[in-house]
Formats: sequence, C-alpha cells, structure tokens
Amino acid sequence: MEWEKLLDHYGSLIEGKLESHFSYVIKNAKDYHPFIAELYENIREYSLRKGKRLASCSALLSYKGYTGKIDENILDVCIGIELYRHCILVHDDLVDKDEFRRGGKSFHNLFTDYDRSFGERVTIFAGDLIFALALQCISRSGFSIDKIDKALSLLIEGYCEVNESQILDLLFEYTHPDVADWFKMAQKRAASLFRASILIGAILGNAPEHDVELLRDAATNIGYSFDIQDDIIDIFATKEQYGKKPGRDLVLGKKSLHIILLHERANKDELKLLDNVMRKRYVTNAEIESIRQVIRRTEALKSAKEESKRYAEFAKNLISKTSMSDEIKDFFSSFINYIEESLDWYK
Amino acid sequence: MEWEKLLDHYGSLIEGKLESHFSYVIKNAKDYHPFIAELYENIREYSLRKGKRLASCSALLSYKGYTGKIDENILDVCIGIELYRHCILVHDDLVDKDEFRRGGKSFHNLFTDYDRSFGERVTIFAGDLIFALALQCISRSGFSIDKIDKALSLLIEGYCEVNESQILDLLFEYTHPDVADWFKMAQKRAASLFRASILIGAILGNAPEHDVELLRDAATNIGYSFDIQDDIIDIFATKEQYGKKPGRDLVLGKKSLHIILLHERANKDELKLLDNVMRKRYVTNAEIESIRQVIRRTEALKSAKEESKRYAEFAKNLISKTSMSDEIKDFFSSFINYIEESLDWYK
Repeated sequence: MEWEKLLDHYGSLIEGKLESHFSYVIKNAKDYHPFIAELYENIREYSLRKGKRLASCSALLSYKGYTGKIDENILDVCIGIELYRHCILVHDDLVDKDEFRRGGKSFHNLFTDYDRSFGERVTIFAGDLIFALALQCISRSGFSIDKIDKALSLLIEGYCEVNESQILDLLFEYTHPDVADWFKMAQKRAASLFRASILIGAILGNAPEHDVELLRDAATNIGYSFDIQDDIIDIFATKEQYGKKPGRDLVLGKKSLHIILLHERANKDELKLLDNVMRKRYVTNAEIESIRQVIRRTEALKSAKEESKRYAEFAKNLISKTSMSDEIKDFFSSFINYIEESLDWYK
Repeated sequence: MEWEKLLDHYGSLIEGKLESHFSYVIKNAKDYHPFIAELYENIREYSLRKGKRLASCSALLSYKGYTGKIDENILDVCIGIELYRHCILVHDDLVDKDEFRRGGKSFHNLFTDYDRSFGERVTIFAGDLIFALALQCISRSGFSIDKIDKALSLLIEGYCEVNESQILDLLFEYTHPDVADWFKMAQKRAASLFRASILIGAILGNAPEHDVELLRDAATNIGYSFDIQDDIIDIFATKEQYGKKPGRDLVLGKKSLHIILLHERANKDELKLLDNVMRKRYVTNAEIESIRQVIRRTEALKSAKEESKRYAEFAKNLISKTSMSDEIKDFFSSFINYIEESLDWYK
C-alpha cells in the first residue's frame, strides 16, 4: 500500500535523525555519569524499536502538505514528537504493569541488574526526562522563535490532555462510564496525539488559520476512529494477527467503547459473565471467546465499528477541504481508509 | 529575621496568585469532568500547604534585584516555579513511599475513596500534569516571546537535571558512591532548582550576562550548602525541631555526604552497624543515636558542616560581585548565613 511505503520512507528519515541525536546525548551523558549514559542508551533502544511512527510522520507530512518539502528543522521537531510518544508509553506501561512493548521489554523491565522496584522507580523519573528531551528537540529546532513557541504550546497542551485522559482511563476501571464519558476520555487520548502532531506540522508549515481549524477537527476524528479500532483489535484479533495474546484490556478492567455498549445492552447473565472475567488476572481463550460472543450478540461490535467508520468519514471529509497538497491528502485518506477496512477483519 | 519576613511577604503574594490561577483551572476542569476537577482541587490544596516558597521567591527576588519592582508577569512565572517544585515532590514522595508532606498526606495518599494502587497510579500522571501546568504558567506570562523562550529552556533543562539526579540518588541506594559521585548527583538536585529559579528571575529582569554567570555559580553553591545541611537535619534534628521522625534517609538507604564520609573513615564494627541499620524498614531512636555517634566519631559531621559552610561562603562572595540591588543581595546573604548558622544547632 502506498501510504505504508510513505510511512516507511519518512519513518526511516526520522529514525536516522533520532539515532544521531542520541549519539550526541549519550556522548554528553558519558561525561557526566556512566549510569546516566546507560539510561540514555536504554531510551535510545526503546525509542528506536520497529514501529509505524504514525505521530511523528503525521507532523512531517502535514508540514510537507503546506511547504512541499522536508528539511532538517522539521526532522528535529519530529524526533521531539517521537520522544513525546515514548514518554507517554513509558509511564503507561508502568501503570498498566505491561511487561513488553514492541518486541522488547517494557522500560521498567530493562534494569535487570537491580531489583524490580529499582526499574519501576527509575521509570517514573525516566518518563519525566523523556518528555523534557522531547521539548528540547522542538525548542532547539531551527524554526523562528514564534513558531517554536506555538509548537511547544501545542505539545504542552497535548501532554496535559493525555495525562488527564490517562487518569480518567484509570477511574473508569473503578466505575461504570457511559458513552459520553468514553468520548470525554477519548477526546484527549489518540485524538490529542494526532491533534498535537498534525497541528504542529501544519503551523510550522504556515498553514492558513482556516486549515488549522479543519485539521484540528480532522485529527480529533481520526483519534476517535483509531481508538475504537485499536480497542476492538485488542479483543477480537487472533494472537497471530496481534503479535501478542488478545484480551489485555479485559484483564486490566479497561472500559472500551464496545464494553460500555455491551454493558448497556447485555442481559443479567451476560453482565455476570463480563463481571467475572474482568475480575480475573488471567483470562483463558475460552473466556475471551465468551465475551466476544456477548459483544457480537448485543451488537456492541457492530455499533462500535459504525462509530469508528462514522468518525473516519468525518475526518476524510474535513481533510479534503484543506489546501494541503494532493499527495498528503491522499496519504491521510488512505491511512483512514485502512482503519475502516481493517475493522472488517475482526468479526 | 528580616529575610524570613521578606519570604513571608512575597510568599503570600505568590500564594494569592496561585490561588486565583487554580480557581480558573478548576472552573475549566468542572466543564470537562468532575473527577478531573477533584484532581486539580487536590493539586491546589497540596501546592498551597504552608511552606517557605524558597524557589519561587528566589526567582521573584532576583527579578526585583534587577528591576526594582514586582509585577503580574513575574508573579505568573513564580507560580510556574512553585508548580515545578511540586511536580518534583509528587513523584519524589511516590518513589520514596513517603506518607506525608508538609503537614498533610503525600499526593498518592489523597485518593482514599479508591485502593492504594489507584492513588499511586494517578500520581504518576498527576506529576506529569503538574509539570505541564508549570510550563504553561511561564508560557502564558506577559513577557516577550524571546524571554519566555529563555525561561522555558531553563525550566526544561532544570527538569532534565533534577530527574537525572533523582535516578542517581536511587542508584546510590544500591551502590557505594564516593564524594565525587555525591557532588555529581548534588549538582543537579537543590543546586539545579536554585539555578533555574534564580536565573529565570535574573534573565527576565534583564540582568547583564556577566551577572547571569555569577548567579549560575552562586546558585549551584547555595544548592550544595543547602543539601548538605538538609541531609544533616534529617538525622541530627530532634523530632521537635524537625516536625517528623528523624532518620528517614537511613531507612531509605540514601547516601548523604555525611554517610559517604563515614563510610570512608569508619572501622569494621561501625560499618557493620551502619549496614545493619540501613537494611531495616524501621529504625529505633537508639539505633539513630548509635549512627549519629559514628558520624561524630569519624568527624564526618564536622567535615560535612565544613563543606556546607565553604560553599555558603563561595555563594555569598559571588552574589556580592553582582549588580543586584543591595536589598536583594542582603536577602540572599542573610538566607545563606541562616543555613550556616543552623548547621551549629545539630551536634
């Protein structure tokens, strides 16, 4: 697929830049203290694991959509966004006690020379540090000071949002959110990450104010569509499709949109089943399949997919109205089409 | 004492500004989600607990030292520094499992409607959020965009430093640092907080470049002097002087300068005693007194006090060379004198 090739190509550019940035950071850290150099080495390895680089590529491509080019300045900003993405993951994995991330150990599991508590405690401070590194990459990029000010403000606002959303996500483990609650949380989750990334690229690329507003809404809608799909994958994908055991959100007690819809529509026995499974620390394949059955039976799956597609269509429509180059409009449309199509893989 | 009256006076101004900032933040949060409003209410209460406000007042006073005035812009920056101080404390208490902070519960203990894990997990994200709030206060202050850029860069650099230092502090629980290691850690602890605060005030107040360099070194030396004293207080103060049980650093396995010096000078039996006490989760008054005896016997106390005083003198000398107003030079000198004098209370 064309859009995936674009991601691969630009992702490699960002990875190259990130790699050389870490050479510099690690060299400096070695002059300070060997353990801090080792820490940055871990951050380098963690950030450079294979991934789609959706957030940083979104910034790069929206910039290209208005300027027609890629330059060193935007690449510096993109590695900031890439680090931003990872500072969120580092704390997220710690909070959810996830043991793996993208084919490797989660950050808090990297410090095997010490006890588990050490890795967990280091990770609290390391996540803080990675956010500061992200801000520095943007702050030190070669853009004019007023553009840097706008980009930093967007990233800081995004960080507030993502952390508020993470806290609501935790609260929902203990409560019964409704659909409106879910959207309140989701408006600051992937939606926030896409907003910050796409708007930073657009503003640095001198997008007209009208386009910035269109992209703000488009990014929010991409986020909704993406999150709903992502949560469906977590329970409906096979281990082969997913690369890991499905059903993690169930064990964590996460209230995905399809679970909230199920809760509104299920009968007593089904609710009891859900309640039992969500209390467990480990769920069997049979238990996951039984919950899938209820999600299908109540048409929570059908409704969630429809919602995801509805927001995908909104997003495509908004993007078509911008004055970005056709190449970049096509990229975003193809990516959104992919989210929609992939929904049909999970039944 | 004159300098304490100044701190009280300016501290109240900062508290008033912080209070009105939170009214605005909490009002907005109520429109979003009641739990997020409750979260900000907790951040408000936590940040406004009685305290000396040393960091934010240092910024305020260095600004006044160059401009002769206090204005709304600098007060906005000061509440940013106050929040910065607190975002560090929130994660610090969580990592050290400290249960109380300044006469109240530590942040992770504030969520009593839920289980303990909830409060701890919320606190990881809340600390992130408070740092973002701190940056926003500076970013939205009325200073020119190039000054805001410099102030933000100082705070971001400070946040990198403090987190690196926190990580070394954890590492030292597992290792045997020497005096040089301690200074590497300490150059990014209180030293970093004083540097960021004093330099932000000075730069916003148009201090000449030469003064900025003098203040950078002065702040670092204040930090060393302060940290050594603060660590001595932790073990040598009585419960009445300290407001809490002394010896917390021993239980946590923290390697204060006096502990490192003791380690270099103690005999086998004394080292065995130290090792035994540092393995405990709870230390008795008799055990604390036995460690104090070794710190005295090896003259680790005497040497640590001398180091603290030496850096205090460096700092006073550097400050006297700046072109700050006499009122502000007097403030900093009196505050540093206080650190020196207070060392004599602990024997």
